[in-house]
Amino acid sequence: MNVPDDVLRARAYLSRVGEPAHPAVWRFVADAGPVEAAERIRGGRVPAAVAAATESRRDGDPDADLEAAERHAIRLVVPESDEWPHFAFAALQQAAARDEPLHPSPSDLARRDGPPRSGGGALVPPLAMWARGGADLTTLGFRSVGIVGARACTAYGDHVTRDLAYGLARADVVIVSGGAYGIDAAAHRAALTGGGTTVLVSAGGLDRPYPPSHAALFEKVAASGLLLSESPPGCAPQRHRFLTRNRLIAALSTGVLIVEAALRSGAANTASHAAALGRPVLAVPGPITSPMSAGCHRLLRLQPAPAVLVTCVDDVLAVIGSPGEGLSEPGLGSPAADLRDELDQLDVTARRVFDGLPVRRFAGPDEIAARSGVAALAVLRTLPVLDLAGLLETGDGGYRIAARVRRRP
Amino acid sequence: MNVPDDVLRARAYLSRVGEPAHPAVWRFVADAGPVEAAERIRGGRVPAAVAAATESRRDGDPDADLEAAERHAIRLVVPESDEWPHFAFAALQQAAARDEPLHPSPSDLARRDGPPRSGGGALVPPLAMWARGGADLTTLGFRSVGIVGARACTAYGDHVTRDLAYGLARADVVIVSGGAYGIDAAAHRAALTGGGTTVLVSAGGLDRPYPPSHAALFEKVAASGLLLSESPPGCAPQRHRFLTRNRLIAALSTGVLIVEAALRSGAANTASHAAALGRPVLAVPGPITSPMSAGCHRLLRLQPAPAVLVTCVDDVLAVIGSPGEGLSEPGLGSPAADLRDELDQLDVTARRVFDGLPVRRFAGPDEIAARSGVAALAVLRTLPVLDLAGLLETGDGGYRIAARVRRRP
Repeated sequence: MNVPDDVLRARAYLSRVGEPAHPAVWRFVADAGPVEAAERIRGGRVPAAVAAATESRRDGDPDADLEAAERHAIRLVVPESDEWPHFAFAALQQAAARDEPLHPSPSDLARRDGPPRSGGGALVPPLAMWARGGADLTTLGFRSVGIVGARACTAYGDHVTRDLAYGLARADVVIVSGGAYGIDAAAHRAALTGGGTTVLVSAGGLDRPYPPSHAALFEKVAASGLLLSESPPGCAPQRHRFLTRNRLIAALSTGVLIVEAALRSGAANTASHAAALGRPVLAVPGPITSPMSAGCHRLLRLQPAPAVLVTCVDDVLAVIGSPGEGLSEPGLGSPAADLRDELDQLDVTARRVFDGLPVRRFAGPDEIAARSGVAALAVLRTLPVLDLAGLLETGDGGYRIAARVRRRP
Repeated sequence: MNVPDDVLRARAYLSRVGEPAHPAVWRFVADAGPVEAAERIRGGRVPAAVAAATESRRDGDPDADLEAAERHAIRLVVPESDEWPHFAFAALQQAAARDEPLHPSPSDLARRDGPPRSGGGALVPPLAMWARGGADLTTLGFRSVGIVGARACTAYGDHVTRDLAYGLARADVVIVSGGAYGIDAAAHRAALTGGGTTVLVSAGGLDRPYPPSHAALFEKVAASGLLLSESPPGCAPQRHRFLTRNRLIAALSTGVLIVEAALRSGAANTASHAAALGRPVLAVPGPITSPMSAGCHRLLRLQPAPAVLVTCVDDVLAVIGSPGEGLSEPGLGSPAADLRDELDQLDVTARRVFDGLPVRRFAGPDEIAARSGVAALAVLRTLPVLDLAGLLETGDGGYRIAARVRRRP
């Protein structure tokens, strides 16, 4: 289905004049429709809350933005197009619609206009999304993980991010992240190495990679995955756009994984968006001596809904994958563990007799009975069992622990 | 209250002939009383389950054990004495009594006799405790933490154990642990450095420190705290005694803290005892790349009752301390955090205006309005607020971000 040209131009205009995640503007567009909303904003015939939010930019030129986008292979995806991720954005739509009358009173508008959640940004859907890359937006949210965390991550955070992102990519999970230094970049790079699809949600225009040194990374993501932004080409990545951007990472992800984060961080902000949208929050623990794990530990201790502690790809798949996926137990295949398995299979009496065997010299059944606290008759019955299991050796008229298992507790 | 000599001698005898944590023997003693139980065991006039558990040692000599104990400054603490820790052992008493008739049928005895929980050991109170050191057993369980973990701990585990044990000791928490290498020893040493009371529960006789290289540590613990064992002097620390010993560490602790543990470990065993006794289980997270933290992470993921994730002394005190203790938030006093606090206190409009300020060159109000998406009039109202807050600087007829806060998101 082709989007009518006037709708596309209206959405392009709205995405420039309406600062992302502004509830009054979003609601005005939802009520009036994009074309009428754009005309009225341009003409200044709008409610006060919408005017305040748009008047400084109302002479925006959508044709210039669409032309700039085309030059950079950026397309505009709008709610009226087939590629709009309705599934992923349903939670934002519900959050925006929650308890809100469709034709609100002025006092409702005033209340809704400036939520004093600094740093948060309201949970409203974007007015449009600028996209670059071959991946399909509609597939997002079904099997995608937002991997976010500290820019100033440690070598541990970098290592863990690469391990998890690579493994998840190999398991056909789409990776969603920002484009920042640290965890974001490590997640994209490892997912690309794993041949996976990766989605980079930028806080600024897609023609302006931020940080600039990540221009090559942006190119690589676009080549196989997707670059996304709420802002038209040319927009600078301002601080509040990072925060409103974070709600999109949460919305586009089946679950959000925090690998390393300081106590207060953008990642914690993304996690709270995810929780508000009903997305599972997963966190990787780390050393309690590392400030870069403190944010993860706080999420893992959060009441009443702590994050899910994950230690491996399977742990993540168990939460965001298909039913039953990732539920295997971690391997216990080490020789020491195998021996412990063997010993665990002994009954209580056999275990005691085994423990009563000397390590070096040989002892007779009576001494073993005294050492183990097991009756002599039971000792005599048990020794052949231990012999068959290869747990003891004989000599000098007595018994001792087999050479292969001479380990003290 | 002095314990009658025949009771003391009977308990000394029982502690040698009855392997620790044997339900049939414990019940027999509970029913018959220690003096009669000792006489009947010595004479072989006991139920089959008791005979099987005691006959190999029934010629034990309590006077020799009591004399050996006296030579090593070890005293025998029995349920009939004032020093018996009734409070701490109440949970063991309840576990032992749960659903059990006082005069069980033979089939009951058979069922109870050999619980096939290899490695576990039944949750029954000890028949007696051998003790050395000036601390009072009766004070245990009110404000005590069992700190347990891997013998082969990492430098991280050692460091964290010392930090937590020292801090808890300074907060008047009694530390309870074993005497092993690794976490156990680190916990005792740091608690002693902190001037705290520390309790070492040994799996063997108190005259035989295990490992032998910890003889000096045992001495130091005895000098200010307490050495404890269920076994009389001379007993070797056999493997099953470590496991039955673990139930005592759990019982004597208000909560049990696992610092580092492999997936299968004695610490995990102590944790399961603690959970069965209704004691909170606390675990320290660590790198997911460290096998020595895998056991902690498993406890933290355990359903339906995960361990409490702790990262500092306050986290531990919040669980095992007095009401309200340890509930302060972790400090956020870094300069960067302070700045973020300042910015968080701005309302949404002021925050956007701030974000619209250029970093290097100066911009006029109109440009700032366009950059921030805030109406020009609101920008003019907001700039003085930001100026007063020291967040901007003026020059060249315009405004930019103050030097002290030039940080990109």
